[in-house]
Amino acid sequence: MRKLINAPAGVVADALRGLAAAHPELRVDPGLGTVVRADAPVTGKVALVSGGGSGHEPLHGGFVGPGMLDAACAGEVFTSPVPDAVIAATAAVSSGAGVIHLVKNYTGDVLNFRMAAELAEDEDIEVESVLIDDDVAVEDSLHTAGRRGTGAALFAEKIAGALAEEGAGLGSVAAVAREVVTRSRSFGVALSPCTVPEAGTPTFELGEGEMELGVGIHGEPGRRRVKAGTATEIVDAALTAIDADMPLDGADLLVLVNGMGGTPLIEQYVAYAAVADWLAGHGATVARPLIGPYVTSLEMAGVMISVCRLTPDLTRLWDAPVQTPGLRWGR
Amino acid sequence: MRKLINAPAGVVADALRGLAAAHPELRVDPGLGTVVRADAPVTGKVALVSGGGSGHEPLHGGFVGPGMLDAACAGEVFTSPVPDAVIAATAAVSSGAGVIHLVKNYTGDVLNFRMAAELAEDEDIEVESVLIDDDVAVEDSLHTAGRRGTGAALFAEKIAGALAEEGAGLGSVAAVAREVVTRSRSFGVALSPCTVPEAGTPTFELGEGEMELGVGIHGEPGRRRVKAGTATEIVDAALTAIDADMPLDGADLLVLVNGMGGTPLIEQYVAYAAVADWLAGHGATVARPLIGPYVTSLEMAGVMISVCRLTPDLTRLWDAPVQTPGLRWGR
Repeated sequence: MRKLINAPAGVVADALRGLAAAHPELRVDPGLGTVVRADAPVTGKVALVSGGGSGHEPLHGGFVGPGMLDAACAGEVFTSPVPDAVIAATAAVSSGAGVIHLVKNYTGDVLNFRMAAELAEDEDIEVESVLIDDDVAVEDSLHTAGRRGTGAALFAEKIAGALAEEGAGLGSVAAVAREVVTRSRSFGVALSPCTVPEAGTPTFELGEGEMELGVGIHGEPGRRRVKAGTATEIVDAALTAIDADMPLDGADLLVLVNGMGGTPLIEQYVAYAAVADWLAGHGATVARPLIGPYVTSLEMAGVMISVCRLTPDLTRLWDAPVQTPGLRWGR
Repeated sequence: MRKLINAPAGVVADALRGLAAAHPELRVDPGLGTVVRADAPVTGKVALVSGGGSGHEPLHGGFVGPGMLDAACAGEVFTSPVPDAVIAATAAVSSGAGVIHLVKNYTGDVLNFRMAAELAEDEDIEVESVLIDDDVAVEDSLHTAGRRGTGAALFAEKIAGALAEEGAGLGSVAAVAREVVTRSRSFGVALSPCTVPEAGTPTFELGEGEMELGVGIHGEPGRRRVKAGTATEIVDAALTAIDADMPLDGADLLVLVNGMGGTPLIEQYVAYAAVADWLAGHGATVARPLIGPYVTSLEMAGVMISVCRLTPDLTRLWDAPVQTPGLRWGR
């Protein structure tokens, strides 16, 4: 295990202390695992809260700030955040206009966010939950009933966050988040496993020269284990799987080529070249590309491709200014 | 070798094709290895050109755009760019106001940029060369006479790029770039080696539980091989080495905690927490932090810490708007 950490049990709290030190515009509680906009609650604004297990940085704590999330809850590595953290974050950002929970579809996350939502309703905070389940690889998985939530979390947080920033109401913001999820698909490929610090051994075994097609962001099994292919073959496998589920012909796409944590940027650009070629050959247009390690799986080598079929409105909201540690543009 | 590539010999050209596809605001020649602002030459503006071996992305091609570089030259992986690329980039961005070559101190880079500068002078393009040699780890190294150039390249490109954007003259822009280099220091630590695709074997061997203190960004040997320490110990080793060379007490610092390519962001934030603690305990202030994989070494695990002693002017230039694939803020 070659990790840049202190004690395995303290990784998340240490990283949150680092986030707090670097970003005074965030209010971070490293013990509880919450990251909140320092100016929250923002008067009259619908608030967005997401979260999940740690190990996927910058998701979600790195996406807190104007134009995106109002708060994120960080569980231990690959472990759902506790309901206490979710309720504290929800209360901290609630301005009375309602709170949206953006929840990736993992059983623990769904349960803990639901419990927190019920507690919030008891305190007269209106909560709308939006489930993110964009990963086409498998129908049920190690930690999930139904499809897993992955890259569409970033899309939904950015786009719904922009609409909330414009002053839209709870129903509209929840609707646009659901629209993004409905129009998004993802597929990941692992070239190496990753190791949870407290476990100390890899989440799965992968022989030299093998890859896992359809891997989850916690190293959950995908569709099949095959001989490692070229970037072009890997991209073809991913986009063919996505296209079979949601035809891409004629689409204007937001495309994320996402490094899983251990794959360097040069290789992510090699993959993007193959993605651009594939989509051009299948009648789709890349309207907005995003390339980089945004939804990671610790130090896993590999790539995840996520797409969202844009509309003019979704494109406008994607382009709107955002000011977070992990995503920053405009103003 | 677990790489997301097609053919080892085509990695750089493939990645540049990806960069071109994602960024129409750049003019990319994947064969020659040049990345140029599409609006170059910018009338009346001093132009900045950098470059070096590939494998350090987003450095340098990802730092081309308004507020930073006008062009970058990408050699093969860990191989200096050819003079033809440097002269082509220099000619493409020259508006008549002069061109600055920002050159990391590696023997091949220095020779090839010098040859290109002489050819440019023959074509009546005035060139000022600025040498970047911020790595305190060793005095001479595998590919270098004198100190190696690493993280200060990013600092110099950003700060000199901002001054050039303001319309300053050749002498002033070169002077601020040299001032940044003079005020900057770096130190890197490797927890794993990396593998050049065409070589196919790791650049060096590192036993389980070992780390290389003072490693170069091509895996060049550092000061010593020791038992892998905690993040706090690693940060202490790096900052103690930097502080011995350039005292940090009382400084306002720009601090880069730089992932080397294979170390995930959660661990970079763990390291940043230790950096913030160390500096606070040694009388230094972090005025501007930057955390992420900006100057990478393929998939090497590890971290490099770079600091620059800021002045009010340097801080203003650091904060100025920048619009590149790898660094983007303001407007």
